[in-house]
Amino acid sequence: MRLRKKPWVAEALTGFSNIVLQNPNEDLKGKWAEVFGNDLPLHVELGTGRGKFIAGMSELYQGQLNFAGIEAQQDVLYYAAQKVQDRELPNVRLLVFDANEILTIFAPGEIDRLYVNFCDPWPKNRHAKRRLTHVNFLEKYRTVLKPGGQLWFKTDNQPLFEFSLEQFQEFGLKLDNISYDLHNSGFAPNVMTEYETKFSTLGQPIYRCEITF
Amino acid sequence: MRLRKKPWVAEALTGFSNIVLQNPNEDLKGKWAEVFGNDLPLHVELGTGRGKFIAGMSELYQGQLNFAGIEAQQDVLYYAAQKVQDRELPNVRLLVFDANEILTIFAPGEIDRLYVNFCDPWPKNRHAKRRLTHVNFLEKYRTVLKPGGQLWFKTDNQPLFEFSLEQFQEFGLKLDNISYDLHNSGFAPNVMTEYETKFSTLGQPIYRCEITF
Ligand SMILES: C[S@@+](CC[C@H](N)C(=O)[O-])C[C@H]1O[C@@H](n2cnc3c(N)ncnc32)[C@H](O)[C@@H]1O
Ligand SMILES: C[S@@+](CC[C@H](N)C(=O)[O-])C[C@H]1O[C@@H](n2cnc3c(N)ncnc32)[C@H](O)[C@@H]1O
Repeated sequence: MRLRKKPWVAEALTGFSNIVLQNPNEDLKGKWAEVFGNDLPLHVELGTGRGKFIAGMSELYQGQLNFAGIEAQQDVLYYAAQKVQDRELPNVRLLVFDANEILTIFAPGEIDRLYVNFCDPWPKNRHAKRRLTHVNFLEKYRTVLKPGGQLWFKTDNQPLFEFSLEQFQEFGLKLDNISYDLHNSGFAPNVMTEYETKFSTLGQPIYRCEITF
Repeated sequence: MRLRKKPWVAEALTGFSNIVLQNPNEDLKGKWAEVFGNDLPLHVELGTGRGKFIAGMSELYQGQLNFAGIEAQQDVLYYAAQKVQDRELPNVRLLVFDANEILTIFAPGEIDRLYVNFCDPWPKNRHAKRRLTHVNFLEKYRTVLKPGGQLWFKTDNQPLFEFSLEQFQEFGLKLDNISYDLHNSGFAPNVMTEYETKFSTLGQPIYRCEITF
């Protein structure tokens, strides 16, 4: 999802002032209930992309759950912000932010569930640490998740899925509902992401599992 | 939802030949599993409108449930067909058809669940029989639903909701999960309809209940 950098996007994102949190920093830590004005459970998606998943989820679980979407590329997040605005969703906030830095903006145990959907596979071994399911990330997830909190993981990439299962096991985490063909697995309701829509249309099976911390 | 009749729509609808069933008649009765090529449970929406609900539901429950959407106005159903086509949903069929005639196209016990969302309220008493929750309709729903099958009903219209609750009770049906403010009720996941989006944006509470036959 490489895009030419659009110079107007930084400016445009400031227009979504209720949706896109500007200059996210340590002031957010421990303050997410204040951001939303209620203490509903907090679900966080890492690598939100164009926001199909987070917009769908927050619409379905309006009044039940709060959602934060973290995305490194502002050009991509712009489309997510538009979806959230069009649907007037009160329970979602978006951040241009690097998932490596989540310990800066979330207090220990502040998150109820994490979602990693179709993260970049980084196929070369020397880039393994950049995969969002690498043990170095799991270490951080364990801190920000509540005890018993979960990570829900989906991907179309088989090598990445197998690498991830190994990492979860190495880390001693409990795996549930592992599926090698999500769309024929009986799992419902399933909110699809942009990548999921694209790959499943091409006939590619989708891999999924739930990891409990 | 009165629209000027668009003459090109009848023609355009024939283009959605996998989605919109042409000339629905008694040949369909008892044959819905054949239509879908599988015997997943069948959920039917009456008064589908522009299809936001049925497209959302069939996407979420792909591989789990089949959906049929019945709508009297072809001009409106056209937009529903477009949504289903854009999302390449395999588990939904749409029909230009009058809900009064459902006994023609469904065999006894063929439907697992019915949805009536924001049906026309017909405020005048002399039109009460046209309301989709009138006992005359309940009689038909009882026939086409499996024993223990449900009707899920949503509306923004308080007099219609109260009338409907009376009709359900008069008919001796079991009511569950009655809500006078759906979006603050804890019910999830909630797929919204076009009317629901519009009325809840205006601050109007949404009424909902589940009726078991
Ligand atoms: C392959 S895309 C998938 C997008 C979306 N989740 C989907 O399934 O359609 C991966 C996304 O993750 C973002 N991303 C990658 N590394 C990230 C990081 N460290 N922090 C935040 N976002 C990241 C990328 O910018 C990209 O938008
Ligand atoms: C008020 S609209 C609501 C549309 C949609 N369910 C929503 O919630 O946005 C009611 C719809 O029911 C359709 N309708 C009314 N009576 C019907 C009948 N007897 N059979 C099929 N559709 C009917 C109308 O054409 C209209 O599209």
